[in-house]
Amino acid sequence: MAVLVQKYGGTSVGSIERIKKVAKRIIKSKKEGYQVVVVVSAMSGVTDRLTSLAHKISKEPHIREMDMLLSTGEQVSISLLAMALDSMGHKAVSMTGSQVGIQTDSVYTNARIQSIETSKLKSELKKGNIIIVAGFQGIDENNNVTTLGRGGSDTSAVALAAALKAKYCEIYTDVDGVYTADPNKVKAARKLNEICYEEMLELASLGAKVLHSRSVEIAMNFNVVLHIRSSLNNKKGTLVIKESKAMEKIVINGVTSKTDEARVNIAGVPDKPGIAADIFNDLAGKNINVDMIVQSTSPDGKTNSISFTVKKKDLTKVKGIMQELKKRNHAGSFSINQKIGIVSIVGVGMKSHAGIAGKMFDVLAKSKINIEMISTSEIKISVVIEETKVIKAMNIIHKAFDLN
Amino acid sequence: MAVLVQKYGGTSVGSIERIKKVAKRIIKSKKEGYQVVVVVSAMSGVTDRLTSLAHKISKEPHIREMDMLLSTGEQVSISLLAMALDSMGHKAVSMTGSQVGIQTDSVYTNARIQSIETSKLKSELKKGNIIIVAGFQGIDENNNVTTLGRGGSDTSAVALAAALKAKYCEIYTDVDGVYTADPNKVKAARKLNEICYEEMLELASLGAKVLHSRSVEIAMNFNVVLHIRSSLNNKKGTLVIKESKAMEKIVINGVTSKTDEARVNIAGVPDKPGIAADIFNDLAGKNINVDMIVQSTSPDGKTNSISFTVKKKDLTKVKGIMQELKKRNHAGSFSINQKIGIVSIVGVGMKSHAGIAGKMFDVLAKSKINIEMISTSEIKISVVIEETKVIKAMNIIHKAFDLN
Repeated sequence: MAVLVQKYGGTSVGSIERIKKVAKRIIKSKKEGYQVVVVVSAMSGVTDRLTSLAHKISKEPHIREMDMLLSTGEQVSISLLAMALDSMGHKAVSMTGSQVGIQTDSVYTNARIQSIETSKLKSELKKGNIIIVAGFQGIDENNNVTTLGRGGSDTSAVALAAALKAKYCEIYTDVDGVYTADPNKVKAARKLNEICYEEMLELASLGAKVLHSRSVEIAMNFNVVLHIRSSLNNKKGTLVIKESKAMEKIVINGVTSKTDEARVNIAGVPDKPGIAADIFNDLAGKNINVDMIVQSTSPDGKTNSISFTVKKKDLTKVKGIMQELKKRNHAGSFSINQKIGIVSIVGVGMKSHAGIAGKMFDVLAKSKINIEMISTSEIKISVVIEETKVIKAMNIIHKAFDLN
Repeated sequence: MAVLVQKYGGTSVGSIERIKKVAKRIIKSKKEGYQVVVVVSAMSGVTDRLTSLAHKISKEPHIREMDMLLSTGEQVSISLLAMALDSMGHKAVSMTGSQVGIQTDSVYTNARIQSIETSKLKSELKKGNIIIVAGFQGIDENNNVTTLGRGGSDTSAVALAAALKAKYCEIYTDVDGVYTADPNKVKAARKLNEICYEEMLELASLGAKVLHSRSVEIAMNFNVVLHIRSSLNNKKGTLVIKESKAMEKIVINGVTSKTDEARVNIAGVPDKPGIAADIFNDLAGKNINVDMIVQSTSPDGKTNSISFTVKKKDLTKVKGIMQELKKRNHAGSFSINQKIGIVSIVGVGMKSHAGIAGKMFDVLAKSKINIEMISTSEIKISVVIEETKVIKAMNIIHKAFDLN
């Protein structure tokens, strides 16, 4: 019998009524002949409430205890969902991360899954039980409770699907699937029936909030077929799979944007080996994620100019580091621009199609949108532009690449 | 270094402010040189809230899932308390029943502790950690979460104290200790400095709500010295210990009452062996706890009359059983009186003092309080009287035995 893993987020189990609805959907899948393993998040609002309690106790709550606290949210959901299934006449058993044996490292609040024990899961499935697993949590080698950080329940679901060799891993959300662009920004956006892991990864890291990139990485590594679909209807959603024939015809699959980053420019960086490494090591040391990086040499050839983008929330820390760099003569001057946005196009097709970048820049130029920075990967092209022009840029690009 | 176990109930950890207060009290004990293990309940109101959620999902929530659900309440308390201690500069580590290794049977919602693993506890204490253990919970042999039923956190605390050979097990509550009678009913009631296990057991089973009888039994079996004291002040409370010299002088140590029981009288019970056993087996089969039992033979010598008391809430079930007994000719007729109260006196001293019962009956007779049933044990005498006369009876007995 094929195994189906389903993941429901906090909104889907946010009330008693919704939990009952989820139970009905699970029963439908069970009746279709699947062995069903369900991963759930905490009921919406619960994690925030627990976090706020912790911060009333302590400004910096101990992270081990934070995980002990937060993991209760999912434990409440799994027991309620299992009760709902039982009351509808279907055998169900809830399991915490610890009970399943979801082994992680010991990085509290942001742990990584190392292995998943499948013997208990398999024996419960054999007994005909629907298994409800608490998402977002695991245990380290000393039996301490850990949590997996942002997108943790997605990660749990995909990792379980990989461990159980599930036929599909269904990710239930409040949208119908993955779109060519955010429908709130681009009216002509349309749902994709298929997308490949690499594209989904770029979209996830670009802030398309459907799925966290960690879970896509696991899916890609273990060849888990993801099905991103809505918990509000029965429509087919978007399948995330390995590259398919059909995809080759499609050059780009999506346009996306983010406006929560700022651009930092450092001028007068000595053209000596190791300086750039120094700069980005300093940033990494303070846990600052750098997104785009562009380096150019000044006309005199003696100093470089380095631009990069970071989350606006990290700017205070970044400024401190910049001051330090100046003191150490690693930088002449620096400037920060917060009023920027990043627009990206994603598609495996661009690997084999020349001229995509040129077309994108051309379209923007025709609309008098100035490009401040460019960064490209094999399947993605990103540009930094003025924040106010992001929506306009997305729409003209969406149209230009025939996504409408 | 001596081990001290402390138990704080739901009210003591009912708010952020109270959790901080509890943390300060724990630190005080730690500074006095103890290795401290703390057992906490769920914050007050939490268990009720979770139970109500479960009943919105299902009329009869699956009991395994109920335990999974309820155990989160204590897990929240332990993490918050550990955070509070950490923020005050003291190393603390929270542990669930599963993490400690509190092994129970598989009777969900009412499990019994079978053993406690102490190696993890001892190693954490050795590291200088204060350990915060989730009360009320354990795991069965298949790693399922179980809960211990009423008074469960007391049970956890006393069992931990026994396993760790603690010097004291302090039970923090909202009263100053054990009183000679309920101060709300007998104004002249006074706090006892010492009481022995047997007396405490009788008081606990009689509804003096300070401590659940299961925990007293464990304390008695493993010789754990209990210290029942208030979390609102620093006064010495009541020590529960083995019989001491001082106690021999005291005849009775307390007067107590309950009014949640009804009296059932069965007349015309055939005087044949096995009939009484049948009756009480039927009651036990429906999980009905019988308290007092009195049997008398009718004047003709052919039939007996049996009276017993049961909780009023069980009366519907009792009536059903009585009808059945009549059909099987095990009973002639039956009657039920709900307007009764049970008043008891407790004291190890009565073992060696004759005439205690006579004195009690005499005092009641003088006040024109009619006794409907009498039941005695070595250290307790209980009488059934009219419900409206319970308070009066308690006061006159309290005075007559020099407890004022």
